[in-house]
Amino acid sequence: MKIKRIIFLAAAGFLCTGTAVFADDIDTAEALALYSDAFDMIWLVLAAALVFFMQAGFAMVEIGLTRAKNAGNIIMKNLMDFSVGAVAFWAVGWALMYGATRGGFIGSDQFFIIGANAATLRDWMFQVVFAATAATIVSGAMAERTKFTSYLIYSVVISAVIYPISGHWIWSGVGWLGNLGFHDFAGSTVVHSVGGWAALAGSIMLGAREGKYVEVDGKKVSKAIPGHNMPLAALGVFILWFGWYGFNCGSTLSGTDLGIAGVAVTTTLAASTGAIGAMITSWIQFGKPDPSMSLNGALAGLVGITAGCGVVSSTGALIIGLVAGVLVVLSVEFIDKVLMIDDPVGAVSVHGVCGVWGTIAVGIFALPGNGMAGTGLLYGGGAAQLGIQALGSLSVMSWVLATTFILFYVIKKTVGLRVDSKEELEGLDASEHGMESYSGFQIFSNM
Amino acid sequence: MKIKRIIFLAAAGFLCTGTAVFADDIDTAEALALYSDAFDMIWLVLAAALVFFMQAGFAMVEIGLTRAKNAGNIIMKNLMDFSVGAVAFWAVGWALMYGATRGGFIGSDQFFIIGANAATLRDWMFQVVFAATAATIVSGAMAERTKFTSYLIYSVVISAVIYPISGHWIWSGVGWLGNLGFHDFAGSTVVHSVGGWAALAGSIMLGAREGKYVEVDGKKVSKAIPGHNMPLAALGVFILWFGWYGFNCGSTLSGTDLGIAGVAVTTTLAASTGAIGAMITSWIQFGKPDPSMSLNGALAGLVGITAGCGVVSSTGALIIGLVAGVLVVLSVEFIDKVLMIDDPVGAVSVHGVCGVWGTIAVGIFALPGNGMAGTGLLYGGGAAQLGIQALGSLSVMSWVLATTFILFYVIKKTVGLRVDSKEELEGLDASEHGMESYSGFQIFSNM
Amino acid sequence: MKIKRIIFLAAAGFLCTGTAVFADDIDTAEALALYSDAFDMIWLVLAAALVFFMQAGFAMVEIGLTRAKNAGNIIMKNLMDFSVGAVAFWAVGWALMYGATRGGFIGSDQFFIIGANAATLRDWMFQVVFAATAATIVSGAMAERTKFTSYLIYSVVISAVIYPISGHWIWSGVGWLGNLGFHDFAGSTVVHSVGGWAALAGSIMLGAREGKYVEVDGKKVSKAIPGHNMPLAALGVFILWFGWYGFNCGSTLSGTDLGIAGVAVTTTLAASTGAIGAMITSWIQFGKPDPSMSLNGALAGLVGITAGCGVVSSTGALIIGLVAGVLVVLSVEFIDKVLMIDDPVGAVSVHGVCGVWGTIAVGIFALPGNGMAGTGLLYGGGAAQLGIQALGSLSVMSWVLATTFILFYVIKKTVGLRVDSKEELEGLDASEHGMESYSGFQIFSNM
Repeated sequence: MKIKRIIFLAAAGFLCTGTAVFADDIDTAEALALYSDAFDMIWLVLAAALVFFMQAGFAMVEIGLTRAKNAGNIIMKNLMDFSVGAVAFWAVGWALMYGATRGGFIGSDQFFIIGANAATLRDWMFQVVFAATAATIVSGAMAERTKFTSYLIYSVVISAVIYPISGHWIWSGVGWLGNLGFHDFAGSTVVHSVGGWAALAGSIMLGAREGKYVEVDGKKVSKAIPGHNMPLAALGVFILWFGWYGFNCGSTLSGTDLGIAGVAVTTTLAASTGAIGAMITSWIQFGKPDPSMSLNGALAGLVGITAGCGVVSSTGALIIGLVAGVLVVLSVEFIDKVLMIDDPVGAVSVHGVCGVWGTIAVGIFALPGNGMAGTGLLYGGGAAQLGIQALGSLSVMSWVLATTFILFYVIKKTVGLRVDSKEELEGLDASEHGMESYSGFQIFSNM
Repeated sequence: MKIKRIIFLAAAGFLCTGTAVFADDIDTAEALALYSDAFDMIWLVLAAALVFFMQAGFAMVEIGLTRAKNAGNIIMKNLMDFSVGAVAFWAVGWALMYGATRGGFIGSDQFFIIGANAATLRDWMFQVVFAATAATIVSGAMAERTKFTSYLIYSVVISAVIYPISGHWIWSGVGWLGNLGFHDFAGSTVVHSVGGWAALAGSIMLGAREGKYVEVDGKKVSKAIPGHNMPLAALGVFILWFGWYGFNCGSTLSGTDLGIAGVAVTTTLAASTGAIGAMITSWIQFGKPDPSMSLNGALAGLVGITAGCGVVSSTGALIIGLVAGVLVVLSVEFIDKVLMIDDPVGAVSVHGVCGVWGTIAVGIFALPGNGMAGTGLLYGGGAAQLGIQALGSLSVMSWVLATTFILFYVIKKTVGLRVDSKEELEGLDASEHGMESYSGFQIFSNM
Repeated sequence: MKIKRIIFLAAAGFLCTGTAVFADDIDTAEALALYSDAFDMIWLVLAAALVFFMQAGFAMVEIGLTRAKNAGNIIMKNLMDFSVGAVAFWAVGWALMYGATRGGFIGSDQFFIIGANAATLRDWMFQVVFAATAATIVSGAMAERTKFTSYLIYSVVISAVIYPISGHWIWSGVGWLGNLGFHDFAGSTVVHSVGGWAALAGSIMLGAREGKYVEVDGKKVSKAIPGHNMPLAALGVFILWFGWYGFNCGSTLSGTDLGIAGVAVTTTLAASTGAIGAMITSWIQFGKPDPSMSLNGALAGLVGITAGCGVVSSTGALIIGLVAGVLVVLSVEFIDKVLMIDDPVGAVSVHGVCGVWGTIAVGIFALPGNGMAGTGLLYGGGAAQLGIQALGSLSVMSWVLATTFILFYVIKKTVGLRVDSKEELEGLDASEHGMESYSGFQIFSNM
């Protein structure tokens, strides 16, 4: 480690002359090994920073798509699911995910990342932002009615226990699903579907927001509750897309992996066709191209390509994204109007449904000889990889739904999951935090 | 490519000990070649991500400088010009820009980037975000009155055809302008002036917004239509400036190019003096330092330095930026009040006028022995480089104005370019997308 | 430097085949030296870009925590303290900070960075964004009542003179504090406390905002003036946290320093516990968990860990952040309600108080054998390092308070420091800049 800036400045000036300083005092092989580490280090730390920034994206999307009276509460949830989640993932989560395995089901050492060397610290840094992504997805589905204390408890449990255990199955290198050949490059299942299914459990256990489903002529009908700040929602989606280059490209886990380019390209194309697919679908369904659906479409395309971004062609990516974009609109409508489950931002559809789609899509579109997953159905690989992908999706879904239903049930029966009706109508900013988010602006009282 | 995380983790732990792992199993020369590729890969992918993020900046600037009733439409335009543009640049644009040349005028193969290896995928990734920048510049000039469908058509054509062809002339390495010695390091002409001139054609063909030019005492007078969200406009400018480090520094195209530092410094200084120049000019003209002019001044400085950021001194950069900052205010006033062309965000002035200024400035300020362009006028290089720069600027301007006038004319005569007056007054959020962007806020009806 | 894109494209294609191109034409030692430079170059330029982006974060935090009528003025201050500051740091600041020393107190050459090579340009780029951070911190404390012209003068002086001189003491490698063994890895003292103490001097010299302290029953009482846009404030904090990975990790000054990972981890954990600490403290004090305090808590944790991020354990980081989070709430309350100094965003507490805390904390928590600072008190290092840290904090505080009090006094007696009461009530957007920031929105007149 360079200790003093003077030494650094002197050395840098010297190096820039092009003189061969290494020949004399450092062995070439040592330098090459150091550089290999340095590539991985700067690559993963920068990618982790990008993924961290997605927290801002999630916060802005959720704020934008909900009502002004709850914006401060959403800020607190998003700030805190990262903050308490990071501490939980440091104390427990990392150990359960990457500690020595117990039968491929759970890790069992490295609590408090004790004894971590530079490589472990680097990997923890990259992994904690993924854990936080899974945690924060749930926030949107539970927006505008969840007790803040309960949300804090949930945040600890998902980051410390639920996310790491299914993560261990797939990404630890010794997990039972990974051993079967399940492929999830950057986390369509490990991260997004975990968040999506937890979001489903949460929104079911909470129930709908006041005024969301109303009786009209004796029939329960879904009423749209429009978000209050579309520019912030759009900004959030752009931030998420930007951060996704860290999420997907960083998942090479190596800065010398030339596959990074392919990942960037498939990510870009799938996000684009996701937005296009959702725009067209909303245009057909509602008669006009809908901004919030189109924004969710871009996210759907990103979630969809996350599992397969390293093993599919650019054409494959275009199709995966397009399907995700169509799917997300249909799923949002189905969950809202048929199942009548109130998910204010569409988190279940974006992250759960499209997470599964992306995972399954690996079994369909994986190129032959990709070096990571079996060949997909379309390229003559048969249904083998497809079956494994389906099994993995189903297993993680079952794990997450089971544990989060229990978790939310226990919370509901103890501290309570939901604010009372009066607090909800008043808005959580006032009731939970004693503040207002847009002081001085005239805002209609029922919004 | 590292396949399983377990292998990676084990290897990383091993490498961090400093043991020379390469000596035994990888040839030094191979490692050096791989590292050279790795530098370029991570550099260009990260730079591309930064340039992608500029999309958020453009969206926020345009939203902030226009009225609340059109914010959702602006979101859709910005999301979609990237999305459909990326697909168009994948299918056609790249091929016309970087495919085998036909006489230095147009590329002719690599449609759908077929057969792309890692290096081509990386280069496509870096180039697609530049194409998208050119496309999205136009959005601001055409804000608040353009039919959404028409905007989609325009987006496809500029990304697939117009931008790539003039790009081929300059950046393909075999284009006629490049062969003449035309120098445009990061795209003052290739990207910004293309966007700026298309913006000019678009705003002329559309005509002014309702109420923009009003009869007062028998004389047509320009009326200011203030933007509705200056904080978002400011955020957009900061995002753009941030992304510009990817735009300009990334244009070394090499992660081992130590010229990166000089590019970063000239970019920083020109943006700064651009802001200062515009602030002072607005202060003199209006009696008070104007925020939106100053913000545009920073962008003007950035556009101005983009062509020459690799060949001018820091003093040169200071002057180029300062002139751009003065120029942008005068140009905005001239276009608005004298030409009476309605460009809501000043896109023609920022990207067109300052793009030309930056391109010309190379011929004035290029340092001797810069290795890329002929010596500038001020350093005794005569008018040779200056002449070539003027020729290039003029050629691209002619190309873009001609093709975009035709394009917008055809659109106007077929699907129509503009929403009707009632829709415009109501706002495009309601008429084109059936939504409102700030639900719950009290907003004056004429805004 | 790669000159033409054709050469680059050809080379890249060739390199990607894995053929050993270097063996024949470049000496291995030269390549290794170039790569060492390239690591530092891309690392520091990317880190500098991240730190630059913090300007957006500071702007959004200040805008969000103040009133709508001053948002445009805040934009101007934040844009301009960077712009004029960068020019000042180019002309004078760098020379005073990194020029040849006069007795360890002040640098004396390299004005206008004349003769800078690639390494110097790179270092200037990384340092200018730090100087700008110190400058912009002050803006928040002086919000809503400062004359814009006076703010411009202040910006020049802090960036050209005040910041660089104390910076020279610590970071030049030959400064008297650095020579004593004072350790400030990334700037808790050098950057944040400089900004914090200047903020204190500024807010005292200005006096409180109109209506901030009111007579109630013969007693002066502090009245809360709520901010107008909490989502933007939250966005600002997320941007700052994101940029802090460049701030702290980049301060290794080397891209091959594997200590980067540890810095990233301590930064993440301290920010998290800072947010948690402030949340809990506000919960106890006010009965409800407060969003703006929690957001400031994250910043407090970040400021707190900045000095020691390279020498403390993850547990140390957790404690440093937690203490900072508690401290910031107590300090904000103390400054507001006991000292009755009006600091609208809490800049003195976040950057001054927590900057000192972080600096002191090095003397408590520094790990043995960290290679940079003496062992901390808790690890048996005694009070030696602690004493030096206290001395350094005190020296910088004295320097900054003395010079900024003089500076603001001179400004006050000449051009005047504060707008008049009528202008303040009307808002600085109207009075100083002749505009409004949220045109069309209904905003209560007293806000």
